[in-house]
Amino acid sequence: MGKELIRVNIAWKVLRCVREMRRQAEDIDAVYTIYVVDDEDKLQGKLSLKKLLLASTQSSVADIYDPDIQSVTTDMPAKEVATFMQKYDLVAIPVIDHFGHLQGRITIDDVVDVIKEESEKDFQLLSGISEDVESGDSVWLLTRARLPWLMVGLFGGILGSKVISNYEPQIQIHPEMAIFMPLIAAMGGNVGVQSSAIVVQSLANKSMGDDSIAPRLLKELAVALVNGAICSSLVFAYNILFSDSLALSITVSIALIAVIVFAAIFGTVVPLVLHRYKVNPAVATGPFITTTNDILGLFIYFSVGRILYGMF
Amino acid sequence: MGKELIRVNIAWKVLRCVREMRRQAEDIDAVYTIYVVDDEDKLQGKLSLKKLLLASTQSSVADIYDPDIQSVTTDMPAKEVATFMQKYDLVAIPVIDHFGHLQGRITIDDVVDVIKEESEKDFQLLSGISEDVESGDSVWLLTRARLPWLMVGLFGGILGSKVISNYEPQIQIHPEMAIFMPLIAAMGGNVGVQSSAIVVQSLANKSMGDDSIAPRLLKELAVALVNGAICSSLVFAYNILFSDSLALSITVSIALIAVIVFAAIFGTVVPLVLHRYKVNPAVATGPFITTTNDILGLFIYFSVGRILYGMF
Repeated sequence: MGKELIRVNIAWKVLRCVREMRRQAEDIDAVYTIYVVDDEDKLQGKLSLKKLLLASTQSSVADIYDPDIQSVTTDMPAKEVATFMQKYDLVAIPVIDHFGHLQGRITIDDVVDVIKEESEKDFQLLSGISEDVESGDSVWLLTRARLPWLMVGLFGGILGSKVISNYEPQIQIHPEMAIFMPLIAAMGGNVGVQSSAIVVQSLANKSMGDDSIAPRLLKELAVALVNGAICSSLVFAYNILFSDSLALSITVSIALIAVIVFAAIFGTVVPLVLHRYKVNPAVATGPFITTTNDILGLFIYFSVGRILYGMF
Repeated sequence: MGKELIRVNIAWKVLRCVREMRRQAEDIDAVYTIYVVDDEDKLQGKLSLKKLLLASTQSSVADIYDPDIQSVTTDMPAKEVATFMQKYDLVAIPVIDHFGHLQGRITIDDVVDVIKEESEKDFQLLSGISEDVESGDSVWLLTRARLPWLMVGLFGGILGSKVISNYEPQIQIHPEMAIFMPLIAAMGGNVGVQSSAIVVQSLANKSMGDDSIAPRLLKELAVALVNGAICSSLVFAYNILFSDSLALSITVSIALIAVIVFAAIFGTVVPLVLHRYKVNPAVATGPFITTTNDILGLFIYFSVGRILYGMF
């Protein structure tokens, strides 16, 4: 927070104002806004350079200042200041304490770094990196940043293997079921990441209210049904043409649409719930959602298969 | 690009300078920097308000202006302007044409939007969304943004099924091999996304040179070997404790470390190659790398299995 700013008293005449500005300017790198305070140093408004340049020497600051000024408080999180300045396209904003005393100012170039860091944090969570690393960092740092999420994936994979091992006899009789396991798992993961990423980005941009879970879910359901129907039909056409097993063709297609719908709902609900409980929703975009949807997808696939193979 | 700026001639005396500024200020919302031009309107430098406030009325602009000024040209891409202003923490930058004539200025609040858009674009590519959408958009828009990458995943999955179908007899004899397919595929995908995301972010921040592929790869190899050894040992310990098949335990662990190493190399090389050929490297972070590594991982897994099951 740059404390260097120009402050003038609301009661001063223009000439004294310019004289004081001249004195204060010696300590300051760049002048953005001239802030107007009262005798108790409480922020009253701003004085545009334009107004000052145009003013007659007879007028006082009180005649030409602009009382309409936005400010932030000293205890406001950097992230919120960034969102605020961005929303209103502000270049500098004064900072006040809880009594309204002018404490300093924040300029947009400080905020640019915060905005960039926030975006990078979400990008890293989405890609399963737990610390801020760059390709130039040491092997140890790079390993430490990646291992935690690989562990999540590993334990998820072991959990998934427990689910599949229940269906081992079924796989022995119908080994062709194994062929489409990766497709089902991958599609569940992809859809989950897409849904969660859109929610996370909308939350980050504040374009989504806190109370909009139900309509959001309905829309997500519609999107998932359309995407699911298209993907399902395509893979069914492929299987009818190139596979001998009707049971397998039907199983894959029914499981695929079910997996896409479930993954979309799951990918939407989890970040919303995390957000409601003040946890960064981006945590739910990467390996966590992929791994969970992998397991969920395979469970759906084998359940559908067990029923359908009984039918044919 | 805001064309509203204050320009003063290098030959003017301070008094004329202030008078001209007063006139120009009438048309301008906010004054950032006062630009100094010569008689041909070529940019010569800047005049700080501080210097002007401190100057004697006898001096001319030439005595007090700062010739050290950075500028951008009218044909510079917005993305480059954003990187430039960020790098030097600039609040406003003058824009000149190829003859050096002052054309206007760009302020950091315009640039904030560009920076945000670039980060969001990478986030979307990583999550498999092909268009700029928010959760408030229509079902049709949301579907259209997601379907292309789902298609990539779908065709990748079908390709993967072709790979696995070669091993169908093997699965029928050893159905327990199917149990760890999702773990192998998922770990390949996760590692690939991590590696590619770090490269993409380093390229976006310009913290990586164009000629650093070889040392980068060596480091990535070291990280992958450490992560691979840890994950492999853990899953081996689990399998020795809870699985009856030594061949399966060894197969899973050898395949896992091989998959992690291959996925890391692949995830590093692909975005670097794309970048070299002027394609946005972020394209390689999402479903594309996951899908490719799924297939590659399963191929490695079954190849290792075929060899090892022959040995035991």
